Amino acid sequence: MIDAVRWLRNDQKIICSPDPESVRMPGCLRLLDQTRLPGEVLYFTVNSLPVLVDAIKRLAVRGAPAIGCGAALGMAAIAESYPENMAEFSAALFRDAEPLASARPTAVNLRWAVERMLRIFREAAPVNVLDARQILRKAALEILAEDIALCRSIGQAGLPLLPDGATVLTHCNAGALATGDFGTALAPVYAAMEAGRKVCVYSDETRPLLQGSRLTAWELHCAGVEVWTICDNMAAQVMREGRIDLVIVGADRIAANGDTANKIGTYGVAVLAKHHRIPFYVAAPYSTFDLDTPDGNAIQIEERDPEEIACGFGKRTAPEGVRFYNPAFDVTPAELITGFITERGILRPPFLREGA
Amino acid sequence: MIDAVRWLRNDQKIICSPDPESVRMPGCLRLLDQTRLPGEVLYFTVNSLPVLVDAIKRLAVRGAPAIGCGAALGMAAIAESYPENMAEFSAALFRDAEPLASARPTAVNLRWAVERMLRIFREAAPVNVLDARQILRKAALEILAEDIALCRSIGQAGLPLLPDGATVLTHCNAGALATGDFGTALAPVYAAMEAGRKVCVYSDETRPLLQGSRLTAWELHCAGVEVWTICDNMAAQVMREGRIDLVIVGADRIAANGDTANKIGTYGVAVLAKHHRIPFYVAAPYSTFDLDTPDGNAIQIEERDPEEIACGFGKRTAPEGVRFYNPAFDVTPAELITGFITERGILRPPFLREGA
Repeated sequence: MIDAVRWLRNDQKIICSPDPESVRMPGCLRLLDQTRLPGEVLYFTVNSLPVLVDAIKRLAVRGAPAIGCGAALGMAAIAESYPENMAEFSAALFRDAEPLASARPTAVNLRWAVERMLRIFREAAPVNVLDARQILRKAALEILAEDIALCRSIGQAGLPLLPDGATVLTHCNAGALATGDFGTALAPVYAAMEAGRKVCVYSDETRPLLQGSRLTAWELHCAGVEVWTICDNMAAQVMREGRIDLVIVGADRIAANGDTANKIGTYGVAVLAKHHRIPFYVAAPYSTFDLDTPDGNAIQIEERDPEEIACGFGKRTAPEGVRFYNPAFDVTPAELITGFITERGILRPPFLREGA
Repeated sequence: MIDAVRWLRNDQKIICSPDPESVRMPGCLRLLDQTRLPGEVLYFTVNSLPVLVDAIKRLAVRGAPAIGCGAALGMAAIAESYPENMAEFSAALFRDAEPLASARPTAVNLRWAVERMLRIFREAAPVNVLDARQILRKAALEILAEDIALCRSIGQAGLPLLPDGATVLTHCNAGALATGDFGTALAPVYAAMEAGRKVCVYSDETRPLLQGSRLTAWELHCAGVEVWTICDNMAAQVMREGRIDLVIVGADRIAANGDTANKIGTYGVAVLAKHHRIPFYVAAPYSTFDLDTPDGNAIQIEERDPEEIACGFGKRTAPEGVRFYNPAFDVTPAELITGFITERGILRPPFLREGA
């Protein structure tokens, strides 16, 4: 399954974070260094804890699902070089788990994946190192397979929204590079392409870190999807010109009432979409819904380093001494969101608890 | 008058394009090279036609009023080295006029200033070169003085909109760097500061060319105004947080019904302002109103080089092979504009022809 899913029709390639070739080889994980994109397509081998932690910290692998998959596959890869003595193996595994889980404090999927690996390991209680490595490897591949299935289901759920010739506007990167398969916000686009439909994407460049131009435009272009890069401040104009049929974005967290935290700029796009009467969808796995958070007011806006704005391109573009405001994300109120594209179909609030 | 006006209270400096010190010296014009900002504050001397044309072409001096003033003062400066024979002097002046007037075809003020200089010269019909130089110099200083008066009047007209503690959001640069004095969109800010009020400005960085972070933030900071730089996609969030009292932007052209062409991104800001019920003002001299253009539909949207987006910071930030859409400006419909701050006060459509 793993090697087949990453190819669209006509051999167009979807490029995910973990290299599918390496994933099939025990003890080896190669990750795409997203910080080098779009200039350089560079894979690096994860063979030790410091390499893995560093990769997550410096955003070489980014996007919550991709971080979860990368961490799990990385744990399995690193375990290949753990001691051959079972007690020492086990000690090394648990010793490495905490620094890995806390490499990015806000990445929910990271800790979740690490804890799930440890739980499965504990429950399986392997008696020898060979078994132990097998168990970790199987557990990691399961996490990856689940993520692939999620992406596919989101893609199918969103497919009816994209008839042949549809044009989507997206913000930031919630595509193959952010997941173990073909993304969340971009999943319906890839699904439409696989279904033989011609679709077109406008990609906001997404200042300050340019995930839209560096990553979204790159992965869609590799996959043969027609993609236009625009500056964030051009979204209103392309909507006004009638170029956009619908907006699809990803989500960092969705509150119980549907208020959605996502990359800074998402809220503005939602307001513009409403003004132009363009449907605005959020695509995310159901695990992104945080039903303990009643609404967006409970979500704190993280501020990031001003240097991202002042020196975002390796060159100082703003004067010394001025102030910067650099919120990392914003909250789009539920009333601006047409629907939520999930593995359970297209949902609208209120969202019910499991079994509720 | 000329040397005094560029200083605010507490010796805070407003830095315009033409160096006020040089303007007082016959035969010398020094211009600030805006392409080097904010990294370097570099003045260069305009002493020949090629230097002046090049400065305008490469945007070392930019902003329609600043280009007009710069061209007129430049003509007077260059004339210092024209032949001492009156017939030859006159021939040189008229020979140089056309390449100067066409250095930027869309800059209305440029051709206007050059033609006005020639007209005054013709009408004065100087009999010797000493008189001729005097006439050109006087004519150029008049153009500058008129621009200064315009900026001051716009500042006074906008002053009541900015009580003590007000916070303005602006887009692009329509400040001192774009005019011969303290700007159009920023004129009310400087006027408020001169009146002893504390005001604060949020400056959209204004991709792709970053006039907001490179120029607006710089000139406001030099003048001692509190300025926050944000990425364009953060405007919605700062409005939502209640940080913005009003928006003031400049204008490239205003149609008879009030539809306003300005830097790309202006329209989006206007939509966001409406959504957040924040007043949205356009500040411009009355000469920006083009009553022969009935509405925004008659204004063609100029597309600029995609490289501005792809390589805007001396570094490629988007992949090869993808498409770009790079409209240079957009049109904000009149219904999104609260009022027009002009030297004639705050206007609202319909605008009447002179004497109508």
